[in-house]
Amino acid sequence: MYSILKSAYEFRANAVGVVEDGIAEEGERQKGRYETLSRIKIFEKFADGLSGVSEYSHLVVVWHTDRENEVRLKVKPRGNIDMPEVGIFATRFPPRPNHIATSVVELVSISGSYLTIRGLDAWPGSPILDIKPYDYWDIVKNPKVPSWFKLLWEERSSQRHYAKIVPWLGP
Amino acid sequence: MYSILKSAYEFRANAVGVVEDGIAEEGERQKGRYETLSRIKIFEKFADGLSGVSEYSHLVVVWHTDRENEVRLKVKPRGNIDMPEVGIFATRFPPRPNHIATSVVELVSISGSYLTIRGLDAWPGSPILDIKPYDYWDIVKNPKVPSWFKLLWEERSSQRHYAKIVPWLGP
Repeated sequence: MYSILKSAYEFRANAVGVVEDGIAEEGERQKGRYETLSRIKIFEKFADGLSGVSEYSHLVVVWHTDRENEVRLKVKPRGNIDMPEVGIFATRFPPRPNHIATSVVELVSISGSYLTIRGLDAWPGSPILDIKPYDYWDIVKNPKVPSWFKLLWEERSSQRHYAKIVPWLGP
Repeated sequence: MYSILKSAYEFRANAVGVVEDGIAEEGERQKGRYETLSRIKIFEKFADGLSGVSEYSHLVVVWHTDRENEVRLKVKPRGNIDMPEVGIFATRFPPRPNHIATSVVELVSISGSYLTIRGLDAWPGSPILDIKPYDYWDIVKNPKVPSWFKLLWEERSSQRHYAKIVPWLGP
């Protein structure tokens, strides 16, 4: 019916930037993504695209989880609570068929082609595929989530003091 | 400093599915994305990844805007109101350096490897790169947006009766 159903289809992209400072490679468990200020460098040839970005408080960063080598269709969410096995499309886990992550972050500052942001869960060196403004089309009021997610959220948000460090986040 | 700054880097991905029914090719202006029910087919080899997705009310669909051929770093947002020229990263417009779109949609139903959703702004035939659950990490309370966006939102949401057809959407 559609060409991509019939023939080999491949999506190709280049990086528009790179994570220069990000979550610690080892200490990730000690310091969470929201306690970390990350720095992204947008490559010079794309820097004009940043005009007006500073008028937003939040962004969606699209990046390549390039250290992930696996693809798993069923995963068990992490957490201290015992979690059910669910499909990869029911989680935000990295071992997805395509290693693309989308992260909602707070824009702290822009200087030239450098963005300082809070909330990016990417290691330094990760390729940035796109920067999108977070706007009203991204806000869902009271979305329904599974009970395992609610338990994970309660655990994480209390341990990490979300209410204090990222009061803008969550339902 | 990082390998991708030094050498040629290319991100490659295959489709995990395809939009089978979507917004009208021509009548797009008559019927908006939220008045349209779209149908996505997830390819059989990835269907196991859908387990548990039905427990969410909303999803983030990552797709390839494969009919977009242009890249423009500066654009003028559409609308009846006169808009300023802004950088592509300050808009969700398609002619971005990488033709990746992320759309927040309402999950209406799942049947086998078919998803029926509301709010996808993709034409039939568009390749799906990823399906992600919309969860609490995606919700920003009262994000700051530019004044041109607010005018566009007010125009669009009143014309399209968002309050009636997508009461879950927006600030």
